[in-house]
Amino acid sequence: MEEHKEKKLPRATAKRLPLYLRNLKILESTGETRIKSKDFSEITQIPAATIRRDFSYLGELGRSGYGYDVSYLIEVFSDILATDDEKRIALVGFGNLGKALANNNFRRNENLKITCVFDNNPELIGKEIAGFMIHSMEEFKTVAEKNGVTVAISTVPSQHSQEAINTIVDAGITAIMNFAPDRVIVPKHVNMRYIDLTTELLTLIFFDNHYQKRPLVTIS
Amino acid sequence: MEEHKEKKLPRATAKRLPLYLRNLKILESTGETRIKSKDFSEITQIPAATIRRDFSYLGELGRSGYGYDVSYLIEVFSDILATDDEKRIALVGFGNLGKALANNNFRRNENLKITCVFDNNPELIGKEIAGFMIHSMEEFKTVAEKNGVTVAISTVPSQHSQEAINTIVDAGITAIMNFAPDRVIVPKHVNMRYIDLTTELLTLIFFDNHYQKRPLVTIS
Repeated sequence: MEEHKEKKLPRATAKRLPLYLRNLKILESTGETRIKSKDFSEITQIPAATIRRDFSYLGELGRSGYGYDVSYLIEVFSDILATDDEKRIALVGFGNLGKALANNNFRRNENLKITCVFDNNPELIGKEIAGFMIHSMEEFKTVAEKNGVTVAISTVPSQHSQEAINTIVDAGITAIMNFAPDRVIVPKHVNMRYIDLTTELLTLIFFDNHYQKRPLVTIS
Repeated sequence: MEEHKEKKLPRATAKRLPLYLRNLKILESTGETRIKSKDFSEITQIPAATIRRDFSYLGELGRSGYGYDVSYLIEVFSDILATDDEKRIALVGFGNLGKALANNNFRRNENLKITCVFDNNPELIGKEIAGFMIHSMEEFKTVAEKNGVTVAISTVPSQHSQEAINTIVDAGITAIMNFAPDRVIVPKHVNMRYIDLTTELLTLIFFDNHYQKRPLVTIS
């Protein structure tokens, strides 16, 4: 299905892919094998016409009145989001969460690899822990460049998050996943993705409290 | 702003709140103070008329042609999602990720509290670690009930995830956050929220590769 990557998708369509993929996986887990654009619109809150147009960019994925095959859509969308090259990742912050990420190291995806680890704790710097040499943030640019890093993950707590992100941005990294929920300021060309577990949990509780009779299909 | 909670929001509106909130926070971090429904529609891919209708359920949040105040919207939406009661959380799986969650324990939100911890590792069961007594999964129902638990977080790896979730569901818990990305089967009344860090990272990389000139505004 490599051909899907050849055509550059409209940005608006691309932005909806993760949303589509997430909801398709939930549909699949509930045993749904086919979905009509009208019903998928109900779930995703994206207009059905937009869904049909988006899907049309990806080739012949469905037939009028018959709906789309859920597992085929998942396969196509996963393929589009997949990366063909190995992505080398710098991990900043080696507390419990950092250790969990380093230890797991996205092992189910062979193209995602944490290759270097940073912390500002003097007791950790220069030590090798769980197979990773811990570097200081002063060394970030040098070590990241040497490792061919293009992506960074920060688990640095909010109060020091901006400082850590600044160092990452100064090293030329443009893709950053941040586990500190407070928004940091970055240049326009930098892509930030926040993982805000408190908000995720509050959203879950909100739905559980207010809409328990019908299951949550996650949209955010 | 308690009055916002009194009226029950339409389910479709409620489903969009986390999406709105996440994008408003990103807008705020880029320095935007006001947003028009048309522009917010461009960001969220929700039709502007739907946005205006959704916001109208929340009272007088904006004026025609003038737009909505970003920080006020964040305040209102955060308030709606906030929980007034203490929510007691069972944590299942006490590896690095479990430890990170227990250690952090949502400390910035006084109403979210991990009160009991479970693991099936015989070397951990019965020990007190980081202030938590580790219980076996056999004790889940008894301990969870004694602790007044209504929410569970599972960090159990995919291959044992279904088993762990079954135990949680059998104890009557209907709100579960799951860090294993593989979909598990749960009864219709159970609200599951998956945190799939690999997909989050792939989405970030996808945008960074294909759309680097313009920043990502996360929608999924």
